[in-house]
Amino acid sequence: MERKNRIARELDPRVPAGNPGKSRKIDRRTFLARGAAVTGVAASAGLAPGASAQGLAGQPWERVYGAAFIGYGQPSRFEQPVMRHIGKPYGDLAPGTGATLAPIESLEGIITPSGLHNDRSHSGTPDIDPKQHQLLLHGLVARPLTFSMESLGRYPLTTRTYFLECAGNSNRALAPQPAQVPAGAMHGNIACSEWTGIPLRTLLEEAGLQPQAKWLLAEGADSAHMSRSIPVEKALDDAMIALYQNGERLRPEQGYPVRLLLPGWEGNMSVKWLRRLKATEGPMHTKDETSKYSDLLPDGRALQFTFEMGVKSVITKPSSTMNLPRAGFYEISGIAWSGAGRIRRVEVSADGGATWAAAALTGEERPKSLVRFRLPWEWTGKEALLQSRATDEKGQVQPVRKAWLAQYSPAMIYHNNSIVTWAVGADGSVKNVYV
Amino acid sequence: MERKNRIARELDPRVPAGNPGKSRKIDRRTFLARGAAVTGVAASAGLAPGASAQGLAGQPWERVYGAAFIGYGQPSRFEQPVMRHIGKPYGDLAPGTGATLAPIESLEGIITPSGLHNDRSHSGTPDIDPKQHQLLLHGLVARPLTFSMESLGRYPLTTRTYFLECAGNSNRALAPQPAQVPAGAMHGNIACSEWTGIPLRTLLEEAGLQPQAKWLLAEGADSAHMSRSIPVEKALDDAMIALYQNGERLRPEQGYPVRLLLPGWEGNMSVKWLRRLKATEGPMHTKDETSKYSDLLPDGRALQFTFEMGVKSVITKPSSTMNLPRAGFYEISGIAWSGAGRIRRVEVSADGGATWAAAALTGEERPKSLVRFRLPWEWTGKEALLQSRATDEKGQVQPVRKAWLAQYSPAMIYHNNSIVTWAVGADGSVKNVYV
Repeated sequence: MERKNRIARELDPRVPAGNPGKSRKIDRRTFLARGAAVTGVAASAGLAPGASAQGLAGQPWERVYGAAFIGYGQPSRFEQPVMRHIGKPYGDLAPGTGATLAPIESLEGIITPSGLHNDRSHSGTPDIDPKQHQLLLHGLVARPLTFSMESLGRYPLTTRTYFLECAGNSNRALAPQPAQVPAGAMHGNIACSEWTGIPLRTLLEEAGLQPQAKWLLAEGADSAHMSRSIPVEKALDDAMIALYQNGERLRPEQGYPVRLLLPGWEGNMSVKWLRRLKATEGPMHTKDETSKYSDLLPDGRALQFTFEMGVKSVITKPSSTMNLPRAGFYEISGIAWSGAGRIRRVEVSADGGATWAAAALTGEERPKSLVRFRLPWEWTGKEALLQSRATDEKGQVQPVRKAWLAQYSPAMIYHNNSIVTWAVGADGSVKNVYV
Repeated sequence: MERKNRIARELDPRVPAGNPGKSRKIDRRTFLARGAAVTGVAASAGLAPGASAQGLAGQPWERVYGAAFIGYGQPSRFEQPVMRHIGKPYGDLAPGTGATLAPIESLEGIITPSGLHNDRSHSGTPDIDPKQHQLLLHGLVARPLTFSMESLGRYPLTTRTYFLECAGNSNRALAPQPAQVPAGAMHGNIACSEWTGIPLRTLLEEAGLQPQAKWLLAEGADSAHMSRSIPVEKALDDAMIALYQNGERLRPEQGYPVRLLLPGWEGNMSVKWLRRLKATEGPMHTKDETSKYSDLLPDGRALQFTFEMGVKSVITKPSSTMNLPRAGFYEISGIAWSGAGRIRRVEVSADGGATWAAAALTGEERPKSLVRFRLPWEWTGKEALLQSRATDEKGQVQPVRKAWLAQYSPAMIYHNNSIVTWAVGADGSVKNVYV
C-alpha cells in the first residue's frame, strides 16, 4: 500500500519529481525513489481546461451496431501478432516436432492464456477421441485398472496453479552470440495454468501399489510414445492426473484428454496424452530419458536425471527487441519461478548486477507457480543493463551466466536458469547481451 | 489432507464401504462418511491380473504423425459442444443485444477460460482499433487528461483475480415454472478472470480530483454508450482500469482495449470499451441506472442503486439436465462468491436443506473471486434434493428462495442470489426444482 501510494503520488506531476542533485548510482534506495519519480507527465497528455468528451466522439465503432454474440470468443483482430514463437528444427519435414514458446514479452499477470501456452512435442499433436482413449495402470499393482475418460471425471478433483517449463527452455541463450529476438523466443518455453485433476495418489491407492514398486513408467499416446520414468515418491506427493486447464478441458497441445502433471519438474516428464502408467522396480531408461534430457558435465560424464527445475526469472518488460520511446518512468516487470517451491524474493538491477533493488511480487504464496514481479524505474536516457535475480524458499539463488556455464559441458542444452541481461542503449533500444 | 486421504482410502475397494446398517438421513457426519464411501469400484474397471498395454495399443492417433504447431491454440474438436449459452431477446434483429452465459456445468476450477467468459452487451461488441481509441478523464479535476492505449500501458500495473456477475444473473430462475436447461443457461452470467490493469486511483490522483467530486460517470465506446455513475469511494478503493484478462489483452466481448473493473459490484458498472470518466458532484441518472438495474420492491417503490453483488453459490456437478448413470460415489462440486469479500463457508445439503455438511474450498483466500467447493457424496439411488449455501466473511448467508422472493416485487429481475435446488430422481435424472 505504501509503495502503491508512492507511485501514485510520484506519477502526479503536481509533486516535485525527485532530487536532481542526487547521485545517479542505483542502489536499493535510489532505485526505488528515483524509479517512481516522473520527470515529465508519465504517459498522458493534458487537455485544455474545459475540454469535454466532444473531441473524442465519432469513432466509427461508436456509430454502428457491434458484432453478434458468439459461442466461443477469440482475441481482437488487432492482437493477432501476439502468437506463440514456433521452433521447428526439421522444418516442414516434421512440422509438429519441436516447440512453441509463449510470447512472454506480450503477456501480463501470472496465468498464461491456454491458446499461448508453450508446447513441446516429439511427433505432433494427436487428435484423440476421448470416448476411445483409455488410461491403463498396471505393473506392480494388486489390481491392474483401466480408466475411461468418463470414469476419470467421476473422481474427486483438486485445483492448483503450477508452471510448466521445458528442460530446454533458454537453450537459445546458450548460442555463441546473443540472439536479437523477443524474450519469449528465447525464454518462453514456460507457461502457468490453473490445473484441475485427480491426485495420482488416489488412483495408485485404488490399484494397490506393491511395496517393491519404486518407479512408474508414464507413456503418451502420441505416435512417438513419449515415455519417462517417475519416482514413486513424486507420484504419491503432488503429482496430478490433469483433466482441465484454466477452467476448461485440456487443450490438445497440452495433452487432451488427460496428462500427467509433476509440479516443478522438467516439462517433458508431465507426459501428455497419457495412455499408460506401469509400476516398476527401477527406471526404464527410455529413449526420452537417455538420448535426451540428460545434463552433460565438463568431464564428459552425464547426470542420470535432473528432475527439478531451478530457480529462475526473466524481465519481460522492457525486453529484447523493444524500444523505450523516451526517458522517464517505466515499470520493470517479469516472471519468476522455482521447481523447489515458493519464490521468496526477486531483485532487479539496472547496472548489470552491481546494485540490486527488491521488486514487488504477486502470487508468491503459491508454490511451483509463476510469480509476477514489478519495480518502478526511471530511465534517465543513459545506457543501462537490466537484470533480475530470483531466490526461492529453499534459499537457492539464480546463478550468473558464467557460473552456470562453468558447471556443464559446452554441449549442454538443458536447465539453463542463469540470469538474463537486457542492455538499454542511449537510443532506447533494448538488446540481448551476455555479461 | 485428512479429507484427501479419507477419500483416497475409501475409493479403494479393499476398504469396506461404510456401514450398511446406518441411517440414510444425511447429517454432517454421515454426509461425509457415507459420501466418500464407495459401494462398488467408483469409476474404473478391473483388468485380469497380468493385463498389459498391448490391449490398448493401436488407436489410430498412435500410428500417425500428429498436427503441426500453431501460433494460437484452440480447444479439441471433441469439445466443440462446450459453448456459451446465448440469450438474444430481440433475436436476429439485434444479435448483439442480450447476453452470453458461461457453461458453468462444463467448467472446473476457478478461472473461466476467456473464450467462455460471460458477456452482457447492449449494442453488440465494437471492433475498436487500439491505436485510435482514447480514454478521457475530465470533469471536476485539476487537469483533464486523455490517455492513448500505448500510454496506459506504461503505468504501474496490478494483477488480481475477481469474479464478474451480471445483475441479471439467475433471473431465468424467477420464471413461474423451473426451466429444464443446463446450470449455465440460468446461473452462468458469471465468470472469473485474472485481471491486470492500473489502479484507478493512480489516474485520478494524476488528474487531481477536486474535493467536490463525489461521483464518476463511466461511459463506454459501444454505440449504446453504456453509462453508469460510480461513487468516488469505490474508484479510490479497489477499482481498476483493466487492460489484460488471464494474461493476454482483454477480449473484445470483455471490453477490449480497456474497461473499468469494480470488484464485487454488478457487472454492468464495470463499463467495457471505456472512453470517458467524468468527475461529478452527484450521480448522473443515466438510462442504464434508471430504466434498468433498479431493484423493485413489493410496495411499488424501487431502490435507487444496488451495487454490491450478494453472497451466492451454485452446484455445477451434478446439475440440471445431467444424469447420474448409476448409484455410487459422486463429487458434488460448484462455485461460490460474494461481492462483500471472501467466502467463509459453503455447505451442501442432499435433503433439501434439512441437514448440511461443510464442503472443502479452493481459492477462499481471494476476496471477490470465485471459490470452488467440493464434497464427496454417495448417491444411494433414491431421490435427493441437492442445495448449496454460501456464507461470506461479513457473515452474510445465501437466502432460501422464498425469503428472497418476499423482499421484492414479482417484477424484480435482478440480484437473485437465492439457494438453487437440483432434484435427483430415482432414475438418476437431475432436474431444476423450486422448493
